[in-house]
Amino acid sequence: MTHHVSAMLETYPKDLGGVDQGKLAACIEACFECAQTCTACADACLSEDMVAELAKCIRTNLDCADLCEATGRVLSRHTGYDANITLDAIRACQMACKACADECERHASMHEHCRICAEACRRCEQACAELVASLG
Amino acid sequence: MTHHVSAMLETYPKDLGGVDQGKLAACIEACFECAQTCTACADACLSEDMVAELAKCIRTNLDCADLCEATGRVLSRHTGYDANITLDAIRACQMACKACADECERHASMHEHCRICAEACRRCEQACAELVASLG
Amino acid sequence: MTHHVSAMLETYPKDLGGVDQGKLAACIEACFECAQTCTACADACLSEDMVAELAKCIRTNLDCADLCEATGRVLSRHTGYDANITLDAIRACQMACKACADECERHASMHEHCRICAEACRRCEQACAELVASLG
Amino acid sequence: MTHHVSAMLETYPKDLGGVDQGKLAACIEACFECAQTCTACADACLSEDMVAELAKCIRTNLDCADLCEATGRVLSRHTGYDANITLDAIRACQMACKACADECERHASMHEHCRICAEACRRCEQACAELVASLG
Repeated sequence: MTHHVSAMLETYPKDLGGVDQGKLAACIEACFECAQTCTACADACLSEDMVAELAKCIRTNLDCADLCEATGRVLSRHTGYDANITLDAIRACQMACKACADECERHASMHEHCRICAEACRRCEQACAELVASLG
Repeated sequence: MTHHVSAMLETYPKDLGGVDQGKLAACIEACFECAQTCTACADACLSEDMVAELAKCIRTNLDCADLCEATGRVLSRHTGYDANITLDAIRACQMACKACADECERHASMHEHCRICAEACRRCEQACAELVASLG
Repeated sequence: MTHHVSAMLETYPKDLGGVDQGKLAACIEACFECAQTCTACADACLSEDMVAELAKCIRTNLDCADLCEATGRVLSRHTGYDANITLDAIRACQMACKACADECERHASMHEHCRICAEACRRCEQACAELVASLG
Repeated sequence: MTHHVSAMLETYPKDLGGVDQGKLAACIEACFECAQTCTACADACLSEDMVAELAKCIRTNLDCADLCEATGRVLSRHTGYDANITLDAIRACQMACKACADECERHASMHEHCRICAEACRRCEQACAELVASLG
């Protein structure tokens, strides 16, 4: 998907400012991938026999999916850029990814979906951190 | 809608902690109302003859709708509560509402949809501020 | 919230066509209310001791919330109206509301959140049916 | 992203039924990719000097993004599968993709973002059609 995200960035008709397009594309891609993975992990947890022990994991998955998706959308827009909105959205996404990675890692040895999901959350957390750093 | 939000809060099977349920319900309601109003305002701007002058307003409306919706969902969940996710989500929502209210107010004298939308954004910004203050 | 939905409809700068504005506003309001209620019901189910018996209910709640929200957004837009998109979105929303109401009703005698949620789903299912009928 | 979608499908703890996992993964991937591309295309259109001529395109992009995203989420869930919800959601998504592809194609020779977006919409429309056919 990164290819498509980058391809669209290159067609934007106005100046994108000094943003690092590689880090921006990576973060957008990570947000959408994490949103899908967290949605799938919440559902897989829901089908586990031990679902009662996964309640917090499911909830964190759902929050993370919603915040990744909203942030992925915000980052896909460049018209009338507002640094305050962008930075606060990325921070909320980064925090949700950190919390969800922490929670999924607790179940990673038992549930493969939690292991994969923790990785997607860490990638998105890292992509958010790198984008924020590049935005100065 | 506040009635329905409150009614659901009262059915939650576990303890909601020390949260001020009135401020929580008001904030959830404001988030969903603001998301709908911003979606409608973006579309009304899009149908104005002077749409080119409203491009930033439309973009801010879309960001605000996405962040209000994600935050309204996060606030509707109480299982495995994580204060960090909640606070960062509210802050991102509050910032988007402030930016969108500021932008819509610039067009409020000419476009009634921007006037009404600015009010919805200010209500949600205020509801976020009050909820954060009560979470102490 | 219906008041705000109607107020925004009246500010739309172009002709809304022959749509019944009362039924349109009622359906938009019902979609957003149902999305919030289903999100809260999924979370309340997740905190029940008998969560394992509510797995299908949680899943249907999540689907219903997503489809109600998308449909509430589509119905909030009037620029470049496309009857095909609108009608298929309403039908998907109506079907999800029916399925979620059916499922929540099975748990309504035991869980008050399911009883309230079933009512919100039935209202939205009905509002969708009335809007489709009025669109001829 | 398809790799991650498929990896998560393989970790689902219960039987996925007779679904064609390749077609399901392709459709989920296409939904998320199309949602991102349509969000970016709406914003690129908004920054064009001739935005007034792209109003319908922007609106259709926004609808398509919302319906692709909701459908991508529904398809990512397998617990308590309900064929009626799934099929109606796919149909709404397929219709929105068709309408958005048709609209974007009208601007494809002038705007590269519309050309790329039309392709993403056609891929998603096709992936929906193939998934429906495989579901029998």
